[in-house]
Amino acid sequence: MNQESQKKLKIALDAMGSDYSPNSEIDGVISFFNQNPDLMNSVEVILVGDEKLLRDKLASNKLVDKNITFHHASQVVEMCDEPTSILKNKKDSSLYKGLVLVKNKEADAFLSAGNTGGVLSVSTVLLGRINGVSRPTIGALFPTKNKDFCLVVDVGANAEVKPKFLYEFGIMGSIYASEILGIKSPRVGLLNIGEEESKGTSIIQEAHQLMKKADFNFIGNIEGRDILQGNVDVVICDGFVGNIVMKFAESVIDFLKGSFKNYAAQGFINKISVALFLPILKNVLKSLDYQESGGVPLIGVNGNVIIGHGKSTPKAIMNMINRAVDAIQKDINRQIEAKLNT
Amino acid sequence: MNQESQKKLKIALDAMGSDYSPNSEIDGVISFFNQNPDLMNSVEVILVGDEKLLRDKLASNKLVDKNITFHHASQVVEMCDEPTSILKNKKDSSLYKGLVLVKNKEADAFLSAGNTGGVLSVSTVLLGRINGVSRPTIGALFPTKNKDFCLVVDVGANAEVKPKFLYEFGIMGSIYASEILGIKSPRVGLLNIGEEESKGTSIIQEAHQLMKKADFNFIGNIEGRDILQGNVDVVICDGFVGNIVMKFAESVIDFLKGSFKNYAAQGFINKISVALFLPILKNVLKSLDYQESGGVPLIGVNGNVIIGHGKSTPKAIMNMINRAVDAIQKDINRQIEAKLNT
Repeated sequence: MNQESQKKLKIALDAMGSDYSPNSEIDGVISFFNQNPDLMNSVEVILVGDEKLLRDKLASNKLVDKNITFHHASQVVEMCDEPTSILKNKKDSSLYKGLVLVKNKEADAFLSAGNTGGVLSVSTVLLGRINGVSRPTIGALFPTKNKDFCLVVDVGANAEVKPKFLYEFGIMGSIYASEILGIKSPRVGLLNIGEEESKGTSIIQEAHQLMKKADFNFIGNIEGRDILQGNVDVVICDGFVGNIVMKFAESVIDFLKGSFKNYAAQGFINKISVALFLPILKNVLKSLDYQESGGVPLIGVNGNVIIGHGKSTPKAIMNMINRAVDAIQKDINRQIEAKLNT
Repeated sequence: MNQESQKKLKIALDAMGSDYSPNSEIDGVISFFNQNPDLMNSVEVILVGDEKLLRDKLASNKLVDKNITFHHASQVVEMCDEPTSILKNKKDSSLYKGLVLVKNKEADAFLSAGNTGGVLSVSTVLLGRINGVSRPTIGALFPTKNKDFCLVVDVGANAEVKPKFLYEFGIMGSIYASEILGIKSPRVGLLNIGEEESKGTSIIQEAHQLMKKADFNFIGNIEGRDILQGNVDVVICDGFVGNIVMKFAESVIDFLKGSFKNYAAQGFINKISVALFLPILKNVLKSLDYQESGGVPLIGVNGNVIIGHGKSTPKAIMNMINRAVDAIQKDINRQIEAKLNT
């Protein structure tokens, strides 16, 4: 290994993860380097997967060897594979082997647009939790009215929580929002069904009390309607509620497209109007689109792990790599550890 | 009391409930009779509230006495009043006195666009639960891609539930969807974070097992993305999740308006395009608008009670009265009782 490659940030990318793998992944990596020529001397992406297939697809590409390298994995994790079965039977999968690279410090981050539960479980087992973290969590970025993002944690890692877990999500979410999203003193809200402290389940009420004493910027309970309004930066909830709201939000685009289609079907004038307006609609709906934000972070494990949507486009993959570079450079895991152990 | 008035359906309307009371309520009642002249001999709306104020506002209206009558209440329940305080200190409020009319069989239904928690609590105390119902529940209608509605229960009455409550929500929701919404063999889905039976919290898992044996049309777990897709008619969840999703959904309209405004601000052409498209947008977003559906039913109490949104327009009030007439005629409470006690 020469001096140059030792200094490079190494990002292991699950090349077999997305629904359109490996094409989305390959095109995403190429786009990343095309758009970031200044990073060509400092970033290497390791494509983890069927090496022969990947080499064939990239045959004539000049990025190979210098910026794109390969790590062979003979197995592929399917979306329907259960975490326990992956841990037991798919140790030669791209998902598992990519995380082994991080564990062995041969990579600085792992990205996958594959099985979310699988990435969560294998990461937790192989990398372990950050000292002081009870449960790793998955966050998702929602758009807001004023064009910023709002980070919602948890969106699926923990269906059942204790008050303490929610409190820790607040600490981790606050650090993520401040360091990665660049929000100064992020406003952290507890997702509830009313503003008063007495509202919600007993777990939420207890979490509220813990958060009141926290040293992050806790703004109290917020409601479902606040997420998109831009008056909160980090929304804390259990993974059951968060997952349902996230998937509901994703479905709004599809619902609106259907509604416009119905409207267009009502007559010729309607059809023309909708056709003229489609570009505007697409532009506006883009902000609702999960793909644009570059994956969701798995926070609380000892390593940088980013999970993409199964339907990740090359652009989404490119944004995931951008976000990984940022996460590695900011090293937020050490900050989380420090905050949780003071 | 003459023969004619004895046969009339009597609907008690909280005239002091909405944010725009009593104007929304008064205009809503007038619209109802204007649009349903055939019901003028069979429906009477009792406006419950400050009688002098209401009489003054309706001074010259020919509906007064025949179709619109008054029941005086000196107090008004505010949105911030706690249920316990209403039960104790606001027995002369329009909300309380309207429900007393139902309790005493002087009205066949009660409608209010006021304090939801208050209506729920006072209804439960004064009217009692239908025999066999563990917890009354509040449902909300969501639009779907194919222009039908999807009923989500619970949306706020019960933040914490037992598996049995969810099972009963399934029975009540199924009857409501079949009788009031006219859906044949409504598809009932359990809101969860995955399709598999093993997904979700232990309460959800147990509820799933109960529902599998139910004699309504249980289609299994559904996810957040299914609500607007039109592939489920009744969505069962606890009031914590349901309330958050409902309020999130309501906020989408506002978010989109903001996004279009931002787009328009980017230049003259954008501004013109958005201006031209606004009518279409409004038409399409209308289906997302909670106001249009005519309030949400309180299901499981011994009486017909419909709760409107605080921001109810006259149109929303009119739709609530329409829905109340329907509910009285179909008498779904007796069906729920029969089903829960077989």
